[in-house]
Amino acid sequence: MLRSILFKKLEQKEHEMIAHYEHLHQYPEPSFEEKQTSQYVASFYRNKNVQLHTRIGGQYGLIAVIEGNKPGRTIALRADFDALNIKEETGLPFESKHEGWMHACGHDAHTAYLMVLAECLIEMKDSLPGKVVIIHQHAEELAPGGAIDMLDSGLLNDVDEIYGIHLFPDYTPDVISYRKGPTMGGRSLFKLHIKGKGGHGSSPHLANDAIMAASTFVTNVQTVVSRRLNPFEMGVVTISSFNGLGSLNVIQENVELAGDVRYMESHTGHKIHQEVIDMIKGIEETFNVRCNFEYELDCIPLINHDIQTDYIVDTLATSQGEYFNSLVEHGPLTSSEDFASYLMKIPGSFFFVGCKPYGVEEAYFNHSPKFVVNKDAMLVASKALGEIVLSRLNKA
Amino acid sequence: MLRSILFKKLEQKEHEMIAHYEHLHQYPEPSFEEKQTSQYVASFYRNKNVQLHTRIGGQYGLIAVIEGNKPGRTIALRADFDALNIKEETGLPFESKHEGWMHACGHDAHTAYLMVLAECLIEMKDSLPGKVVIIHQHAEELAPGGAIDMLDSGLLNDVDEIYGIHLFPDYTPDVISYRKGPTMGGRSLFKLHIKGKGGHGSSPHLANDAIMAASTFVTNVQTVVSRRLNPFEMGVVTISSFNGLGSLNVIQENVELAGDVRYMESHTGHKIHQEVIDMIKGIEETFNVRCNFEYELDCIPLINHDIQTDYIVDTLATSQGEYFNSLVEHGPLTSSEDFASYLMKIPGSFFFVGCKPYGVEEAYFNHSPKFVVNKDAMLVASKALGEIVLSRLNKA
Amino acid sequence: MLRSILFKKLEQKEHEMIAHYEHLHQYPEPSFEEKQTSQYVASFYRNKNVQLHTRIGGQYGLIAVIEGNKPGRTIALRADFDALNIKEETGLPFESKHEGWMHACGHDAHTAYLMVLAECLIEMKDSLPGKVVIIHQHAEELAPGGAIDMLDSGLLNDVDEIYGIHLFPDYTPDVISYRKGPTMGGRSLFKLHIKGKGGHGSSPHLANDAIMAASTFVTNVQTVVSRRLNPFEMGVVTISSFNGLGSLNVIQENVELAGDVRYMESHTGHKIHQEVIDMIKGIEETFNVRCNFEYELDCIPLINHDIQTDYIVDTLATSQGEYFNSLVEHGPLTSSEDFASYLMKIPGSFFFVGCKPYGVEEAYFNHSPKFVVNKDAMLVASKALGEIVLSRLNKA
Amino acid sequence: MLRSILFKKLEQKEHEMIAHYEHLHQYPEPSFEEKQTSQYVASFYRNKNVQLHTRIGGQYGLIAVIEGNKPGRTIALRADFDALNIKEETGLPFESKHEGWMHACGHDAHTAYLMVLAECLIEMKDSLPGKVVIIHQHAEELAPGGAIDMLDSGLLNDVDEIYGIHLFPDYTPDVISYRKGPTMGGRSLFKLHIKGKGGHGSSPHLANDAIMAASTFVTNVQTVVSRRLNPFEMGVVTISSFNGLGSLNVIQENVELAGDVRYMESHTGHKIHQEVIDMIKGIEETFNVRCNFEYELDCIPLINHDIQTDYIVDTLATSQGEYFNSLVEHGPLTSSEDFASYLMKIPGSFFFVGCKPYGVEEAYFNHSPKFVVNKDAMLVASKALGEIVLSRLNKA
Repeated sequence: MLRSILFKKLEQKEHEMIAHYEHLHQYPEPSFEEKQTSQYVASFYRNKNVQLHTRIGGQYGLIAVIEGNKPGRTIALRADFDALNIKEETGLPFESKHEGWMHACGHDAHTAYLMVLAECLIEMKDSLPGKVVIIHQHAEELAPGGAIDMLDSGLLNDVDEIYGIHLFPDYTPDVISYRKGPTMGGRSLFKLHIKGKGGHGSSPHLANDAIMAASTFVTNVQTVVSRRLNPFEMGVVTISSFNGLGSLNVIQENVELAGDVRYMESHTGHKIHQEVIDMIKGIEETFNVRCNFEYELDCIPLINHDIQTDYIVDTLATSQGEYFNSLVEHGPLTSSEDFASYLMKIPGSFFFVGCKPYGVEEAYFNHSPKFVVNKDAMLVASKALGEIVLSRLNKA
Repeated sequence: MLRSILFKKLEQKEHEMIAHYEHLHQYPEPSFEEKQTSQYVASFYRNKNVQLHTRIGGQYGLIAVIEGNKPGRTIALRADFDALNIKEETGLPFESKHEGWMHACGHDAHTAYLMVLAECLIEMKDSLPGKVVIIHQHAEELAPGGAIDMLDSGLLNDVDEIYGIHLFPDYTPDVISYRKGPTMGGRSLFKLHIKGKGGHGSSPHLANDAIMAASTFVTNVQTVVSRRLNPFEMGVVTISSFNGLGSLNVIQENVELAGDVRYMESHTGHKIHQEVIDMIKGIEETFNVRCNFEYELDCIPLINHDIQTDYIVDTLATSQGEYFNSLVEHGPLTSSEDFASYLMKIPGSFFFVGCKPYGVEEAYFNHSPKFVVNKDAMLVASKALGEIVLSRLNKA
Repeated sequence: MLRSILFKKLEQKEHEMIAHYEHLHQYPEPSFEEKQTSQYVASFYRNKNVQLHTRIGGQYGLIAVIEGNKPGRTIALRADFDALNIKEETGLPFESKHEGWMHACGHDAHTAYLMVLAECLIEMKDSLPGKVVIIHQHAEELAPGGAIDMLDSGLLNDVDEIYGIHLFPDYTPDVISYRKGPTMGGRSLFKLHIKGKGGHGSSPHLANDAIMAASTFVTNVQTVVSRRLNPFEMGVVTISSFNGLGSLNVIQENVELAGDVRYMESHTGHKIHQEVIDMIKGIEETFNVRCNFEYELDCIPLINHDIQTDYIVDTLATSQGEYFNSLVEHGPLTSSEDFASYLMKIPGSFFFVGCKPYGVEEAYFNHSPKFVVNKDAMLVASKALGEIVLSRLNKA
Repeated sequence: MLRSILFKKLEQKEHEMIAHYEHLHQYPEPSFEEKQTSQYVASFYRNKNVQLHTRIGGQYGLIAVIEGNKPGRTIALRADFDALNIKEETGLPFESKHEGWMHACGHDAHTAYLMVLAECLIEMKDSLPGKVVIIHQHAEELAPGGAIDMLDSGLLNDVDEIYGIHLFPDYTPDVISYRKGPTMGGRSLFKLHIKGKGGHGSSPHLANDAIMAASTFVTNVQTVVSRRLNPFEMGVVTISSFNGLGSLNVIQENVELAGDVRYMESHTGHKIHQEVIDMIKGIEETFNVRCNFEYELDCIPLINHDIQTDYIVDTLATSQGEYFNSLVEHGPLTSSEDFASYLMKIPGSFFFVGCKPYGVEEAYFNHSPKFVVNKDAMLVASKALGEIVLSRLNKA
């Protein structure tokens, strides 16, 4: 069977996954600046029997198209490869050589296992029905996100289904988890500039205190979540910066607030946006200040398609106990992922493989300077994604 | 001298003041409904050599004009005669016979001493220069106040100066106190109806909670006094009623707030009015509620004229130690008096005679059900006002 | 088959269900005062081959125990029979004859179909394995709820599983809906008395304004939901009554707030309780007021057991298309049900049968004075509950 | 008479005042660092028949004692000589030569006229009764202020009365203004550090938002002025800095507030302090944050003594129309002056001479980079202070 051929190949090449991972881990690069990483991936594919597209949308993302020898469907697999502005503190022997940057979200491992999975599938091309589209995406961490470039390239227009995996240290690699529907949060960012009128601390009546207006806005805006959303609707409004730094005896003329909004459904984000606009008008009227408000979408909510999630469950259920132990449904996550953009256009599902190191009570989380991937997760991820793609290539 | 003649007469008639006072005390009447009181006063003047005007402006106030036999100026003296909706608890032998109504502000004593003072002045007519206008005013306690009726009658058009006294239990009758400029507070009253949208307690997003909006208004409105007024400007905004009485599980659709605003200068009252209007617009925008706001002037601030207050001080300073011991300047008072309306049109001053009972640490205050007037205050008041009117009748 | 025998019986007795329903509808009674209703139900069972327990816990609830002739398990079925303090406006020919009271929640229909279902099962006793416990519960609408009396009676100690149905006008009777886990909200009620110090409206510094403190509490308490709960955790805090009714010029000494708290998980209710206590201490410190706080559990969240809900789904899935068309999973509901108490002790599930009248876009909801039950719902409910009880009586 | 001799001398030496003023204006120095200025003043006195004390309290202030030849009283006169951290923009030909520092408050002119006045009095020593103590004070602008050093030196222990003048550009030099009692504001400064618990923007329940707590503090603290002070009591609480600068997605752990408190009477400052402490406890309880609060006195209110102010008025009233035109009473000022410290110990009064340039509608105010003194003010100030000192030297 194709599945057992693929699994044997993956097992034999596990050391390659690890080597790629350790190499990539040493050379993390910022989102939209992944030049070195992109060249590393491109050179890997260059001598292989595959159609390679580089510099997608003028950025560093790549797409490798594996055409099977038989008729079938087109399935896309995606891994991301940008890193974070974090100073590594893992003490790993292959620590980051790019001072101040770190693969602290597992994108190095994502890229490594997908390269090897792609290599195996290329070797199996003749037996494959349909087409596998391998997406090595840039800039997952930074809005507007590389997924948009990939979609805009037109290279995914004929993709029937798309799948992706994130490594997540809540479990060790023997656990795979999935979720239907709203799975990861949407996020919008805002800035609110409030302009009053400066003046002497002893004469508030001649000035117009922007700190007073801004503080009232902070308290008022709590009612968006507490009274305006459906109690079953997830929404968060966090004001993460209140810049009203001033000097003694001087009433503040300007305050700059900034914050982020989280939601699991886009309409919640729109509703919050609208309510906040009303509150800003209210602050303007109440305190006679002028406000400048910017609200921008950072990431849409990730909504897994029910049918494709069922396919994952159906496929992996039979493997449970073989190369992993548990297949579990997880709760919704507040964090965001630009895989969401693919799912707006293409049926698919995004799921999780545990990457917690063995023998620890609680692992350091993604984006921690001490985040470490359990290397065993890569083989599990490659097998899971591999058997899913095989099963989906020739089924409607 | 006229002064010593007048003082001797007043001393001889002190028992009459007391008799009038005790009679009036038994028959307190509501503002604008002082029929019995008005008849009592009218019958007192009727057989006397004086021009009496009754039912001023269709109400129960009276004006008695005492024409002196010599040329001179026109000086008005005013006492008020309405009572309060208070159940008396003094235990006096001449307690109120009108259940639920009480002369708890000393208007009975005001009226009593002024009647006797007028009687003395009538008896002295032939020796008097100019004209004394005795005002027995109705409805001091209730907006719009009887002073306006008196002024509108035209009978005060030729008055050169006006004086009045209030008995005040902060001192015993040996103390007279005065103040120049802003002396007693102005007051405006407001009602704010906030209409949201009712709903089930478990579904705030389908309703619009008027209690939430009204509570925010209460906190916002504090900034009118704390940040919008000149720190040297007296202003108070009290929300004295928050009617959001509702039932369990039902989000309130309507809240009715009511309150009063105090100030020593009319422009402060206007400024507060304007600021509150801005805040209401702000609440409408912030919470998408509809507001109905009523703000009405209850009483203007009482501003004593500097020159006339100086006359009082000059006149009484020489009497200090004779029929009273101390002449003191008092601080501004937050309470209100519709004598303020006369002072908008006619130069004058309104001052205070102590009426605290002897031997008490702290007296029950005006408007207390236990408020009691020290009867000695009437003779002091009649002498003070008497010597002022004599001194002012023939001086420019 | 037992199922087809039962269904035939139910169909034949449908007119009896309707007759019981119309009778009960005319004689609604308050919670804990359902004397007439209880007698009606008791007399129905009295001449039947069943063990009847009345006046459970001294109240009006009844339990009828149907002992099958074969060994088996013990399954309880529950219907409630109290009514609401609502003046009926349906115009039905069998409108309420108890002025001001109404069966506006369908308990009349619940009782009617369960009486007939019980009658059928009694008739089938000889063929039944195990034991069916029929619970006619009083006082579902009013805390502490009749379920507790039933449980305290000990009569349910040997019950293996329990099931119940509510009629719900979101669908017509061809739809049955169910949910696993947290299904209906928990509710706690609170009262907060805030005592400041009264005083004159013009002298806030001598008083302590309870309206100010209470309004700040209302705004502060929003942060419990907006910042203290997990964003995925359902929680509502509604202040439904703000009694600060006062008179002009008087600063309010006392305010009484009342409200309700909703949650889908008991720990959320506890967390809210704890946070509100902190906020009350904060208000006491900030405004130097004294607070008296009462917080009491009204109803725990209803958590359907997964396994028993699966049994329902498995059983009804095969009947779909026969006596109803759709079996759907519904979302969580904020409303409360004291069936929750049974589910704390006994495995089971509570589900819904549509009762929307035909041909209406949107039906009047439970607790509306115009709420009307579609009579066809009773046969559907009796069949659904009937086939579930049959299937559960002899399975582990 | 002594007065006419003094006035003639002052007129003849007016050009010297101007020369001193222009020199000092070019060499402004920071508070507590007035080395050059101190040397300039010291060298002026050194060859004169006067007892000179330098480096008072180790700082740069000086005291010159002029012993008259006849018995009499001891009267102190004070001028200050520190400058401000302001970049001058006047365009004067004698602009500051100390980049970034400017005599923008008229202390240069104060020092200049007092030097010349002292010189004249020294020349008149033989005719003078009593003793004149000339205080050239350092560090008026910066807490704790140089006045304390002067008092602590013991050199003022036998001073009977003290007088001082400030130039103020509200009037041209033909106007002198005075005020009894509370005249200039007291000021206290505070810092409030609020420590919550940081966290991810999407998980407020795991963090504790310091911005939320601090904003609530800002709104709560308004009630100190609006509801806790006597409405006739001047008080201001300004939060002039809200440092809650943070980064996206991170809930703020720390906020630092800073502000100033103004009052005309020390007990108001104490009351505000106490109320703010209560509110901080309230914020700690409400939001479970930890607060660190620092509140320190910056400057006490300046309370002119009634009797000494009357002396000024009596003395200057007879000169009105001679070397100046109007003597007016001014309202209270919110700004602060450390002359207040002298008045806590020594009877005296601090008054104002106009220094507005001619022909301008509104002058640039003290502390403006464009503030300019009308030089004529110096002669007026020297004559006013001169005739007051003469009149007070031999009167009880």
